[in-house]
Amino acid sequence: MNTIKSFAVIGGDKRQLYCARAAADDGYAVNISGFEKCEDTPELHFSDIDSAIENSDAVILPLPVSKDGKTLFAPFSAHGISIEKLFSKIEASKPVFCGLKGKTPDSYFAEKKCFFYGCREDFAAANAVPTAEGAIAIAMENSDITINGSSCLVTGYGRIGRVLSLYLKGLGANVTVSARQDKDLELIKAAGMKAVRTNRISGHFDFIFNTVPALVFDRKTLAASAGNAVIIDLASLPGGIDKETADNMSIPVFHALSLPGKVAPKTAGIIIKNAICNIIGEDEI
Amino acid sequence: MNTIKSFAVIGGDKRQLYCARAAADDGYAVNISGFEKCEDTPELHFSDIDSAIENSDAVILPLPVSKDGKTLFAPFSAHGISIEKLFSKIEASKPVFCGLKGKTPDSYFAEKKCFFYGCREDFAAANAVPTAEGAIAIAMENSDITINGSSCLVTGYGRIGRVLSLYLKGLGANVTVSARQDKDLELIKAAGMKAVRTNRISGHFDFIFNTVPALVFDRKTLAASAGNAVIIDLASLPGGIDKETADNMSIPVFHALSLPGKVAPKTAGIIIKNAICNIIGEDEI
Amino acid sequence: MNTIKSFAVIGGDKRQLYCARAAADDGYAVNISGFEKCEDTPELHFSDIDSAIENSDAVILPLPVSKDGKTLFAPFSAHGISIEKLFSKIEASKPVFCGLKGKTPDSYFAEKKCFFYGCREDFAAANAVPTAEGAIAIAMENSDITINGSSCLVTGYGRIGRVLSLYLKGLGANVTVSARQDKDLELIKAAGMKAVRTNRISGHFDFIFNTVPALVFDRKTLAASAGNAVIIDLASLPGGIDKETADNMSIPVFHALSLPGKVAPKTAGIIIKNAICNIIGEDEI
Amino acid sequence: MNTIKSFAVIGGDKRQLYCARAAADDGYAVNISGFEKCEDTPELHFSDIDSAIENSDAVILPLPVSKDGKTLFAPFSAHGISIEKLFSKIEASKPVFCGLKGKTPDSYFAEKKCFFYGCREDFAAANAVPTAEGAIAIAMENSDITINGSSCLVTGYGRIGRVLSLYLKGLGANVTVSARQDKDLELIKAAGMKAVRTNRISGHFDFIFNTVPALVFDRKTLAASAGNAVIIDLASLPGGIDKETADNMSIPVFHALSLPGKVAPKTAGIIIKNAICNIIGEDEI
Repeated sequence: MNTIKSFAVIGGDKRQLYCARAAADDGYAVNISGFEKCEDTPELHFSDIDSAIENSDAVILPLPVSKDGKTLFAPFSAHGISIEKLFSKIEASKPVFCGLKGKTPDSYFAEKKCFFYGCREDFAAANAVPTAEGAIAIAMENSDITINGSSCLVTGYGRIGRVLSLYLKGLGANVTVSARQDKDLELIKAAGMKAVRTNRISGHFDFIFNTVPALVFDRKTLAASAGNAVIIDLASLPGGIDKETADNMSIPVFHALSLPGKVAPKTAGIIIKNAICNIIGEDEI
Repeated sequence: MNTIKSFAVIGGDKRQLYCARAAADDGYAVNISGFEKCEDTPELHFSDIDSAIENSDAVILPLPVSKDGKTLFAPFSAHGISIEKLFSKIEASKPVFCGLKGKTPDSYFAEKKCFFYGCREDFAAANAVPTAEGAIAIAMENSDITINGSSCLVTGYGRIGRVLSLYLKGLGANVTVSARQDKDLELIKAAGMKAVRTNRISGHFDFIFNTVPALVFDRKTLAASAGNAVIIDLASLPGGIDKETADNMSIPVFHALSLPGKVAPKTAGIIIKNAICNIIGEDEI
Repeated sequence: MNTIKSFAVIGGDKRQLYCARAAADDGYAVNISGFEKCEDTPELHFSDIDSAIENSDAVILPLPVSKDGKTLFAPFSAHGISIEKLFSKIEASKPVFCGLKGKTPDSYFAEKKCFFYGCREDFAAANAVPTAEGAIAIAMENSDITINGSSCLVTGYGRIGRVLSLYLKGLGANVTVSARQDKDLELIKAAGMKAVRTNRISGHFDFIFNTVPALVFDRKTLAASAGNAVIIDLASLPGGIDKETADNMSIPVFHALSLPGKVAPKTAGIIIKNAICNIIGEDEI
Repeated sequence: MNTIKSFAVIGGDKRQLYCARAAADDGYAVNISGFEKCEDTPELHFSDIDSAIENSDAVILPLPVSKDGKTLFAPFSAHGISIEKLFSKIEASKPVFCGLKGKTPDSYFAEKKCFFYGCREDFAAANAVPTAEGAIAIAMENSDITINGSSCLVTGYGRIGRVLSLYLKGLGANVTVSARQDKDLELIKAAGMKAVRTNRISGHFDFIFNTVPALVFDRKTLAASAGNAVIIDLASLPGGIDKETADNMSIPVFHALSLPGKVAPKTAGIIIKNAICNIIGEDEI
């Protein structure tokens, strides 16, 4: 795929626009479609979908491709874009970089040379940064105290847990991180934080950030740790909190999803571009 | 003053309420007045002003004491509180802890045993924390990129500059700090950041945080450093930015003042309480 | 194994002594053997091997068990301890916690209830800390400059790479970390460091810390990055440096192995104790 | 003094050699004298003292100038250099950059255009870095545990206290810093560390770093805090520890002085060069 010199960026939110700009900054010719309602796009080249595809070596579709299974996710488009028509215009040999399928039927992807940048580990790792910063912004906005000097619990020491706990420590918080595996507990201590086994969470915390997609905060754990806390749940739906019990205990819970596109669309767009470039660098087509 | 066992907290915003609570948590009897319109004060003891003063060993006034020179700064009060009347009710031997004078005539303070917690260095140092966090929150909200990986310039290495640059570095930013004195330039480098003399600022920055109360960012320095930046000006009025030039260059400037009370009133209230306790610990009345 | 109440700690270096003390601090009865020549062991209970084993619920053997395949690794023992005899005295049902086999024939372990604490991920993760600190101490001792302000390259972002790069950044170094995987490159940037692909290392570095057990520093990479560097090689034998070329280029190379026992035997002993306790917590015998 | 184009570097230890090299790297012509016994000086230009002075616009003397009041501090010189003769050869209009007087009679300096780089705040601030790193190296070498996870106390929050506590935190230690002033206690907390008033030190510490040149650790404070500690005393003579009591309590005390020249002579030499350049930049002769 090192012969790709041009992209058609079709549909998506501000992230795709920033992705298009970043690709242009890297020297690619970029044609964008589906952004008629967006005002702030001076230096990009608008086309209709047909000529965008025709004039480009590869197509970049959004994240997700479709939310309803029929039309492209394209909030800045002046009109609905049928994914059926769209895919019919892309020849089978042309690489298509997709975010996530969303509700798009599998059959569309099966016939094309599709690459899912949204499923890659590098993409997820890079997005841990805007997710962590977004979580910190939510904590700042929804509390009467500073992060500095507060007691913070981060559950889980995967990508987001690692990055978020590091930043909280960088702000001078007292950080405890929970994990299930012994090796992670050791790495948490090595990073200068307190480590606790996820099934033994207790203590006084001002902020709780959940990254574990499982019911970590059941009634018992909420009672043992969250009485005075603000909870920011970063785990995908249904999240890790017994919401009903939290409500009964008057514990504020913020379920924060899809933060990268909300808090830092430019960074998120560059992350998409980087993931696509990594795919191109790895694969030979 | 170690004989003080009770406080009258009269007027002020949410900081004073949190100050009152923190004093109560420390074991003081606390009477509050001027918070009729505030809903969230269950555990505090309301009084009318006369009995609050009479029943307390000392009086705590807000920050500032008055914004108009006539009435107490008391946004939660149901009615205006005349500072003339208020001061007339306080006997000369009773300690009065004031924030800043604001527009209050000096004569009122001259006749009382007044202590200005808002002028103390410990108070200013402690408030550097919510100020720095508030500045970071503003940067996050008003930018399409993450702090991590960005280029940040902090001008000045006083209290706020020290704390803010440390937090930005903790978030993984590339931090440059400007200072005038050689010794500060060395301490900046010792902290793992880039140091630049304030009169030689140049380079590409995504975020500029000004803490210097002087015109650092004139036309020339704006041109040399701020073309793509978001500027957060933390210096007291008139700030350190040539606003007209910045506007002409389409550089967004956020003049952020009085952040502690806005972003972290509870922390700010505890800081007031701590400053008062430090005064009491130091002085013998 | 939660019924274990006593340990026989037989042979090994200072780490095993500290392991014995840590186990005693946790409430276990501990009998030690093979430390006749060690002077600093006031509070521990010495026994001959036979009664130590007989009086203990489990046996702890050193790291490695044997260096010559015949005698126990026991540098503080007054005389050689035959591993054949030793193993013959341990009944088959008694748990034996071993470090690494070393040159011990497999047959010995096959007949016993053996657990290798030295092969566990939590053990390796915990030992990343004394390894990283030992590497920093070597760098400090063998250079005329400070770590602060220096350019440091860490190759590899596994356990040691993660911990070491974090500490170097904490000392104010300019840290670059190399990795092969895209996701690690993203996590390196998320941690506020520069990321470089391992096969594209170049630049000026004052210190190079290699954690990759492969020939990363061949002639070409040495020439591209190490001209003025001190190299500390932390990879197991044969290490990651073309030593002959480095010698010809007058690049000092320190091949630092087994640092935990050398730089922090107490920490290393506690790590052994923790790993054994983790094994006990996991397994039911 | 911006007309200075050449330096005579006369006497001193390795720091002066590195200072000479750094000046040469900056483009100055440099003549060195008094280093006959030093082997590692290939790229520097040796002269006898007379021609070195004659051919240079300014003279750089060591730190201290003299230890005995008669001869220059010049450990690498093949023979004693009389300071009387030396000063007699320097014309009154030629700038002389001296470190510290040491035992040199004041009269020598009075007649010359002397500048003491060793008395400057920027010089002291920059030297806090090698001092802090040297203190950490001593702690690492003289303990069986890692800094990570240990409890560290730093007394004093001046230059060295600030830098040292930051680095210890960067290594993942639990850091407490003592100070006398309320504002420093606030800045310590702002940096994410525990703060304690210097006259109320107590607790369990693994490492104690004293930077206060006063008897902080008397019998009572030693008993309250140092029972299991290694003490590194960085304060100038006589230091801040009651040595007799510490000895009686078997508390190891390392009085570490003049660390920069010992642990990082190249960094220390560059610091001397920078201080001299700062003097030149400030003054007009």
